[in-house]
Amino acid sequence: VAGVTDLLAPAAGRAAELIDDAAVLAAAVGVEQAWLDVLVDAGIAPAPARHDLAGLVGPDDVAALADAAEGGANPVVPLVALLRERLGDAAAARWLHRGLTSQDVLDSALVGCLRAAGRQVQADVARQVRAMARLAEEHRDSVQAARTLGGHAVPTTFGAVVAGWLHGVLDAAEDLADALGRLPVQAGGAAGTLAAPDVLARAVGLGGRDLTARLAGRLGLPPAAPWHTRRRPLTRAGDALTACTDAWGKISEDVVLRTRPEVGELAEPPAPGRGASSAMPHKVNPVLATLVRSRALAAPQHAATLHLAAALAGDERPAGAWHAEWPALRALVRSALVAGSLTAELLEGLVVHPARMRATALAAADELLSERRARPRQDEPLRDAPDLDGAVGVVGALVDEAVSRAGSWLARPVGEGRP
Amino acid sequence: VAGVTDLLAPAAGRAAELIDDAAVLAAAVGVEQAWLDVLVDAGIAPAPARHDLAGLVGPDDVAALADAAEGGANPVVPLVALLRERLGDAAAARWLHRGLTSQDVLDSALVGCLRAAGRQVQADVARQVRAMARLAEEHRDSVQAARTLGGHAVPTTFGAVVAGWLHGVLDAAEDLADALGRLPVQAGGAAGTLAAPDVLARAVGLGGRDLTARLAGRLGLPPAAPWHTRRRPLTRAGDALTACTDAWGKISEDVVLRTRPEVGELAEPPAPGRGASSAMPHKVNPVLATLVRSRALAAPQHAATLHLAAALAGDERPAGAWHAEWPALRALVRSALVAGSLTAELLEGLVVHPARMRATALAAADELLSERRARPRQDEPLRDAPDLDGAVGVVGALVDEAVSRAGSWLARPVGEGRP
Amino acid sequence: VAGVTDLLAPAAGRAAELIDDAAVLAAAVGVEQAWLDVLVDAGIAPAPARHDLAGLVGPDDVAALADAAEGGANPVVPLVALLRERLGDAAAARWLHRGLTSQDVLDSALVGCLRAAGRQVQADVARQVRAMARLAEEHRDSVQAARTLGGHAVPTTFGAVVAGWLHGVLDAAEDLADALGRLPVQAGGAAGTLAAPDVLARAVGLGGRDLTARLAGRLGLPPAAPWHTRRRPLTRAGDALTACTDAWGKISEDVVLRTRPEVGELAEPPAPGRGASSAMPHKVNPVLATLVRSRALAAPQHAATLHLAAALAGDERPAGAWHAEWPALRALVRSALVAGSLTAELLEGLVVHPARMRATALAAADELLSERRARPRQDEPLRDAPDLDGAVGVVGALVDEAVSRAGSWLARPVGEGRP
Amino acid sequence: VAGVTDLLAPAAGRAAELIDDAAVLAAAVGVEQAWLDVLVDAGIAPAPARHDLAGLVGPDDVAALADAAEGGANPVVPLVALLRERLGDAAAARWLHRGLTSQDVLDSALVGCLRAAGRQVQADVARQVRAMARLAEEHRDSVQAARTLGGHAVPTTFGAVVAGWLHGVLDAAEDLADALGRLPVQAGGAAGTLAAPDVLARAVGLGGRDLTARLAGRLGLPPAAPWHTRRRPLTRAGDALTACTDAWGKISEDVVLRTRPEVGELAEPPAPGRGASSAMPHKVNPVLATLVRSRALAAPQHAATLHLAAALAGDERPAGAWHAEWPALRALVRSALVAGSLTAELLEGLVVHPARMRATALAAADELLSERRARPRQDEPLRDAPDLDGAVGVVGALVDEAVSRAGSWLARPVGEGRP
Repeated sequence: VAGVTDLLAPAAGRAAELIDDAAVLAAAVGVEQAWLDVLVDAGIAPAPARHDLAGLVGPDDVAALADAAEGGANPVVPLVALLRERLGDAAAARWLHRGLTSQDVLDSALVGCLRAAGRQVQADVARQVRAMARLAEEHRDSVQAARTLGGHAVPTTFGAVVAGWLHGVLDAAEDLADALGRLPVQAGGAAGTLAAPDVLARAVGLGGRDLTARLAGRLGLPPAAPWHTRRRPLTRAGDALTACTDAWGKISEDVVLRTRPEVGELAEPPAPGRGASSAMPHKVNPVLATLVRSRALAAPQHAATLHLAAALAGDERPAGAWHAEWPALRALVRSALVAGSLTAELLEGLVVHPARMRATALAAADELLSERRARPRQDEPLRDAPDLDGAVGVVGALVDEAVSRAGSWLARPVGEGRP
Repeated sequence: VAGVTDLLAPAAGRAAELIDDAAVLAAAVGVEQAWLDVLVDAGIAPAPARHDLAGLVGPDDVAALADAAEGGANPVVPLVALLRERLGDAAAARWLHRGLTSQDVLDSALVGCLRAAGRQVQADVARQVRAMARLAEEHRDSVQAARTLGGHAVPTTFGAVVAGWLHGVLDAAEDLADALGRLPVQAGGAAGTLAAPDVLARAVGLGGRDLTARLAGRLGLPPAAPWHTRRRPLTRAGDALTACTDAWGKISEDVVLRTRPEVGELAEPPAPGRGASSAMPHKVNPVLATLVRSRALAAPQHAATLHLAAALAGDERPAGAWHAEWPALRALVRSALVAGSLTAELLEGLVVHPARMRATALAAADELLSERRARPRQDEPLRDAPDLDGAVGVVGALVDEAVSRAGSWLARPVGEGRP
Repeated sequence: VAGVTDLLAPAAGRAAELIDDAAVLAAAVGVEQAWLDVLVDAGIAPAPARHDLAGLVGPDDVAALADAAEGGANPVVPLVALLRERLGDAAAARWLHRGLTSQDVLDSALVGCLRAAGRQVQADVARQVRAMARLAEEHRDSVQAARTLGGHAVPTTFGAVVAGWLHGVLDAAEDLADALGRLPVQAGGAAGTLAAPDVLARAVGLGGRDLTARLAGRLGLPPAAPWHTRRRPLTRAGDALTACTDAWGKISEDVVLRTRPEVGELAEPPAPGRGASSAMPHKVNPVLATLVRSRALAAPQHAATLHLAAALAGDERPAGAWHAEWPALRALVRSALVAGSLTAELLEGLVVHPARMRATALAAADELLSERRARPRQDEPLRDAPDLDGAVGVVGALVDEAVSRAGSWLARPVGEGRP
Repeated sequence: VAGVTDLLAPAAGRAAELIDDAAVLAAAVGVEQAWLDVLVDAGIAPAPARHDLAGLVGPDDVAALADAAEGGANPVVPLVALLRERLGDAAAARWLHRGLTSQDVLDSALVGCLRAAGRQVQADVARQVRAMARLAEEHRDSVQAARTLGGHAVPTTFGAVVAGWLHGVLDAAEDLADALGRLPVQAGGAAGTLAAPDVLARAVGLGGRDLTARLAGRLGLPPAAPWHTRRRPLTRAGDALTACTDAWGKISEDVVLRTRPEVGELAEPPAPGRGASSAMPHKVNPVLATLVRSRALAAPQHAATLHLAAALAGDERPAGAWHAEWPALRALVRSALVAGSLTAELLEGLVVHPARMRATALAAADELLSERRARPRQDEPLRDAPDLDGAVGVVGALVDEAVSRAGSWLARPVGEGRP
């Protein structure tokens, strides 16, 4: 899959086109198709109304549809008109979209894109988790200085640091799995009352919810009461994606700090052309972490916009709040896709300098061991005066715990159900 | 419990003092107490070291502690010094806080405050849920116009509208229960390595995690690996609180819109002095909804600050990002407490004018029924020409579903485990 | 100029391509060209080094450059390489970009795009101002109810309401003009020290600032000390653009509220296909205001990202904070362009129903006149008992003041200098 | 002036009580007083109506007023009632607040608080500017490595770094002065129509604007057309305060990075108890910079809330958006006061280690000088091979420019008019 092009968002191409215009269009057509199939299968629409919509519109139509989207303030209105026109079958056309509203189609389509993107994020998380489990194991004895408020605090190991990264990523990935799994189908008709689906359904002795449940089944989504103006499914997904970029942001912060030449404990995986400067030939910039961080700094604001839209979801469809969700959602998904991919590559090839870590820790040993010697009164005898390696022994258990959690997570079946 | 005073945040007093300075102080002392008890019970500290800390400091110390907090950039540093001084027992003083770091104490204390506040929010949610279940039942046949983008869309009932509110609040409340239940104890020592607890524990044949698990048990919190720089527990709680204010914001938006005199379908519960204007004696302003909305508009930004802090949680304790969490968390918790209480009162006393709803719907009946008549070609015969009441029949099922969900939620045991 | 295509941002096409990838690329090439010309003109680079760069790269190169941008975490690194390669003149190539850093080029290019976009915004503001001045005049006597907290307050006129809109838009437009006029050239070399430009300049008896001032002159920008890590020029522009979307958001809020069928005082300008619903043939949705509002809800969060980037601009170029600015800036500029154009069209064709306004005001006259009768004690005699039209007489002065300000603003010379 | 107490916002006490509840209350009473005086002076109210309101209410009334504020969703409603009651003069009471609306009083009061707080910020800026001008001078030859994306870039001096800080702070301070100077009086009556003031004024042959202009004069504020729902005056001030915290955030970021022990170029001014850790006796944490940074991370979100409130300012007074401004404004003002004071102290006592700077730069000299040697082809002869000190010569001009700007700024008369 080719990627997104964006000159002002380096690495944008890593966001496979899972929520670009063509993907959204295809997903929307998929919703219309699934609904038409439901109507025909239920005997509501006549058999000849069944058509394959997939080929009727495609990426070449995006520009015209985007242009026409202004008229109805959403792209589904012109899409339905175009599909009906291209169907070339007036009898069938009257069944297309019948009983749905544009929000049903767009919400369900975006949910589909979100799930596909979420799966990709989870695949990159799996790469990250494997890499971190390996790093944590390899560096369980790589002594280094732990740092608080920038200063040397106590001894730790790089393995323990990575164990913390691991927990952080898994915390977010578990929430993401949960959020993706709870993204429901949207189907309720003009104002979410199910009136139109119900009228259709009654003709064959069914209820509106029977039809929308079948739609859910066809799209592989959970059924739900209409949620046009209760948007927690979307904000939950947005929050979880932001939790992911938070976790990666923390890793990137550590990498940037530790690749500084005065620290020199880490380096990014080298690659041709990576880290180059236009002015300074010697520079090798931590570009992967830099770009991860740039995404992590913006994601919370996109998530905030989703929440604001939820809080302002007045009436049965609000004028503006619903519409504000779309660009925010896309920006958030793309940020997660890009940052997830960059972080996976960063972790898989991370260059670790344990000797430098140890040298710094040794030079600061007096300070690093001061916690143990901390005591309210100076006449209290020291309980112990451990060496540096002894001091880090205990963090091995933190490494084990994190690696074990990683193993459990990786052992779960792939899909949005993981973990 | 007396409330918070804030002239610029009307209804601030509804936020019982669950996260004010005195509460945070008490919670911090509680963490120190629990840890001291753990050390004594484990035979690490001698029996005479056991002291009751609860009376040593109190609200009168807040000002001095707040002032002294600047020195260490957090209030725990001076608190420990003050407790040791007041203990009047140098032998015991050396065991106080021993093995902990200030972040252990403050994070665990804030977690405690969060859980207490969350329980209060859930109590108000229960009031809301009961009120909404009743409203939904009472108004299952109260026909009204559904509105999209401000315009009349299709018929619905006010009961169905309330059913949507109910689902929205329960979506958030379930996430809040989950987030509260997953707020863990924080205990890891200076840089989260567990080194100091472990040194203490080994003297009696235990490990550091054994001690921190006992601390967790005493505080009624789940144990966890140190999470000093992976902040999903806090952002998860912040996101869930924001989901609550989102759900209440949506309700308040609907109330404000429907109390407008031209609509006149709803009114706020009357109370002496409520809704008064300083200039216009006739005005009865929807002040409850107004204040709910004011909180819902700000909450997402507070949650965003928590996420940013998480993304910037570099090293083993970041300089500034951790510190930025505290005011954001307090503002978010208070907003949820206030808005939750206001919404409960609003819903419990909401005045509904079903006759006005019906009159408006009848006047717009031609338009409201147009969805059913929508057909691609005008020569297609109408399938039906239902009256308004027939058109709303189907939404009864939406009411039933929401009311049933409400009943299940209310039947769960009280506590942060609900639901 | 063709517009931007974005299926999830209806009306995106109204953002002429002033900050799309091709525009940014052209602006960046323009900066390189201007600098090369400066070097040649100053006698630093030899005359044969002068080349016309404009045709060397173009929109077809965007995809490859965007892809390569990841390596250096910005698109200028591969752009310089590509320009040097395509120049086909090794002697000249060594002068290209010499003395600049990628941030010099990208910042200056974005400043150029910002100014061009800002001019477009100002052109749409001029349309808005003319339309509002006309509306305010036409409706200086169109009595209507002023509304506070949703309720009827006192009498006003629609002309006075529009006068408020006018002031709001001009407040923002004046700040935008100021911010655009203060966007300076960026030119400082690798870390903003001017060392590289200075070395070049000294060869011909000049200083580095002489060269960067000449660059500024060629680009029509004010000169400035390097501002690589003090970002107020950008946040100022972002704040002003957000002030614009705020002002338009307020207008859109009023329009959405007053097009509600129960109010019926305003309607959007009709256009073929505008306001259509996919499910309800009768609906005419206020789509222009809806889309304006959707932009206004997201803009503040983009501006916040710019501020965060400024606050985190550590060292002489930060890893991530600088990079986070670009997508936020683009999103903000596009939002302003789209919302500005939509608002202009909305205002130019706004349909006003003064009879409906008056009827509502008359029906509520008792309430609307209550402010005048407000008195602390009921035994105080009424000073006056004015009729509705008398009550609105005073707002004519507000109309005059706003219209006069509009006239002054429109009389200033076009360009970012206005006013 | 005593400070604010907040256990979760260390250094909160540095925010002198310029916008706390007592200050807001006093400012509101001041507005009522000024208006009463205007009415009496104009001969509208009889001479015996003149009363001194200042002593009627005070800090002891805050709790009751805050409690009662819920009824009208703002604190002015109960304040007016209390003032009338305490006046003990029914004849005078009827003139109190007559013609004003609660928003007139609260907006004007907040504007007053904002200006007072802004003057305090400017006083701290003046301290900062003096300190930076001195540091820049003193360290104009303190060679150090400039850093981009964390890596060593080119030589600079610490003086030049401080020159950049200086420009950054002055950029913000100039905008703050502008914004403060443009904060107008609010006075328009119930819905900003000036109807009530006008009725009063006409009795003595004046217009409503004449009275509001006199009010403005008494309060020392510029007059303006009512701006109840065009909020640029407030967002402009919020943006400028955020620009200040941005500038200080950048400084704090640099300080935190450079106090890291591996860098060791800077240290915070020592003070008793400052920088202490509860667990590690050796630590000296950069607490001033830490706390500045914590404020800088949150400020942009508060400013975003102000913008959202502006964008949602529907009708003549919105239900919720206006109310959302107050806590955001207070949080922002306090953040600026605290961070401004901390930054002043940080800069006044900043400990600089030029030898360490030079040593690091010398060790990295080969890299630092690579920009100069950068050339497209390796066969191009080096133009020069300067030593480190020669390389930094040029930045002296940057120091001069910044110091000169500082001098001009400091020479301007004190007050909100500075600069």
